[in-house]
Amino acid sequence: MTHDPARPLRRNALRLTLAAAAAAATLLAMAPVQSQTQEPVQPIEAAVVTEPAKVELGKKLWFDPRLSRSGFISCNSCHNLSMGGSDNLKTSIGDKWQKGPINSPTVLNSSLNVAQFWDGRAKDLQEQAGGPIANPGEMAFSHDLAVDMLRSIPQYVTEFKQVFGHDRLSIEEVTAAIAAFEETLVTPNAPFDQWLKGDKTAINAQELRGYELFKGSGCVACHNGPNLGGTSFQKMGLVEPYKTDNPAEGRSAVTGNDAERFNFKVPTLRNVELTYPYFHDGAADTLAQAVDTMGRIQLGREFSAQENADVVAFLKTLTGDQPQMALPILPPSSDKTVRPQPFD
Amino acid sequence: MTHDPARPLRRNALRLTLAAAAAAATLLAMAPVQSQTQEPVQPIEAAVVTEPAKVELGKKLWFDPRLSRSGFISCNSCHNLSMGGSDNLKTSIGDKWQKGPINSPTVLNSSLNVAQFWDGRAKDLQEQAGGPIANPGEMAFSHDLAVDMLRSIPQYVTEFKQVFGHDRLSIEEVTAAIAAFEETLVTPNAPFDQWLKGDKTAINAQELRGYELFKGSGCVACHNGPNLGGTSFQKMGLVEPYKTDNPAEGRSAVTGNDAERFNFKVPTLRNVELTYPYFHDGAADTLAQAVDTMGRIQLGREFSAQENADVVAFLKTLTGDQPQMALPILPPSSDKTVRPQPFD
Repeated sequence: MTHDPARPLRRNALRLTLAAAAAAATLLAMAPVQSQTQEPVQPIEAAVVTEPAKVELGKKLWFDPRLSRSGFISCNSCHNLSMGGSDNLKTSIGDKWQKGPINSPTVLNSSLNVAQFWDGRAKDLQEQAGGPIANPGEMAFSHDLAVDMLRSIPQYVTEFKQVFGHDRLSIEEVTAAIAAFEETLVTPNAPFDQWLKGDKTAINAQELRGYELFKGSGCVACHNGPNLGGTSFQKMGLVEPYKTDNPAEGRSAVTGNDAERFNFKVPTLRNVELTYPYFHDGAADTLAQAVDTMGRIQLGREFSAQENADVVAFLKTLTGDQPQMALPILPPSSDKTVRPQPFD
Repeated sequence: MTHDPARPLRRNALRLTLAAAAAAATLLAMAPVQSQTQEPVQPIEAAVVTEPAKVELGKKLWFDPRLSRSGFISCNSCHNLSMGGSDNLKTSIGDKWQKGPINSPTVLNSSLNVAQFWDGRAKDLQEQAGGPIANPGEMAFSHDLAVDMLRSIPQYVTEFKQVFGHDRLSIEEVTAAIAAFEETLVTPNAPFDQWLKGDKTAINAQELRGYELFKGSGCVACHNGPNLGGTSFQKMGLVEPYKTDNPAEGRSAVTGNDAERFNFKVPTLRNVELTYPYFHDGAADTLAQAVDTMGRIQLGREFSAQENADVVAFLKTLTGDQPQMALPILPPSSDKTVRPQPFD
């Protein structure tokens, strides 16, 4: 599903009217004569679920606030699947309303990233999943307490045994299940993917102009591949220094290499219409602001109002089908489950 | 769906084996010879949705944290539909991690209550729905700001117009849509309802003993009707004073009548297995504690361990089919939408 209610109407119109047929011909004429493989962006495919029970268990854990000290914050609190897999806040709200240090990146299509977190300190989704649970500024629990909680709930014990085939319910199984769920959170079928796959009516003339500018002005040097990003670390403020109050140092905090200071993982542009505000500090509220800033500090270029609008129009074609899922019903705590004390 | 994975197995066993057939005969013999209409508890029925678009809009609003000042707290935060329509905390967490004054009652089957809130200060669900949005200790927004937010989002504007047939998007439409959604949140088909409807194998001997004790010892004097509660206000601590640090005064705070001090709306016992902790102050962590306390302070009776276990077993037969729903995808904010500042 896209978030532009006008889109299906427009596409039907293109197909059903003479005027539209002419417009479609124009679009075809404007489309670069090259196959999909020549584009620096590739479409993404729907997830293939091979372990449905594991995914279903991971989904329950994803939505379970009992994985936090307070019993109030779940994975979904900051990576809200109703809101593009993010929280749409500059930085997230953690345990006791602590101000998070960095903008919450979307979980959507995160399996396509080369590493996890803005600084890439987790090599994969499973390693990432354990982070927020035990981070004192986020869910503020511990792996041991999270596991104790799950072991106290008979239905969880049964499900872990069914999925993993053994009785060891450890943080490894918890994070493996969460990661398996996250791997299903891809958003195929964006209008731009339809265009990449050959439907030249899937994006309009302005959107195509935006894509050509996106390629021609250098955005695509970092925002490439199926996720339009997520494949490399790049310096924020390449041409012009980026001014921010946010103290995050980026990649150098992981590698110890000062040359990588202020290098962050290039964020995906998939569903970027939904994942505002933008940048690691969440400083850009709108796509127009983000495009303007990126042009200036990364490319040394000031986009005109028309150019900016064209790129923004292109970026909105990257909204894919959002994951459709039933809200999980969580197994209730047992009498043995330790009750959270959020105000202690 | 019930939350007892053993239940379907047990029922199949009853039907499929000779031993089970004998047990079923025993159950039938024990069942009181009376029709459903003679019971002080009535089954609840599935919701009939007459305005699906209104319900769907209400569902989006229910899950939308932009109805709070912080952009972080939605209706579902404290009435979590993955967790029996409550937050399973003694008292809820409000804006800036404020400690809520009272235990969050379940939204499930709340349309069957005579009034809303523990003190009944809202006459119906629509009146209730406006409360938390503007309560400085809960979502801490204002009705005007909530409406401004919604008006800034084209997809919401379109949906409100489709549902209500006019362009006035006011708090009345917001709360009407939320109430329409809440009215669908009923949980039919609990094992006890199946028993009430004539399936005498739907509850076992212990559960039936618990129900007989529930009736015979006076619990049912307050916990009656289809919701096993929600029909009257009663004094907490009728026989023996209830000790609590919670300052809530109950009904007298609404009526000004000091004789109603400490009178609270009798909570529903539907899905009570899922809605721990119990009482207006959330002081009872388990059903066993709650039954024990109720026996002593309301009935002047100390239940034996066996009696307590029987009543608890009966109470667990009140878990009905939880509302099944797709997680909504929320329309994104527009460039005009004011961004929340949770840390200001």
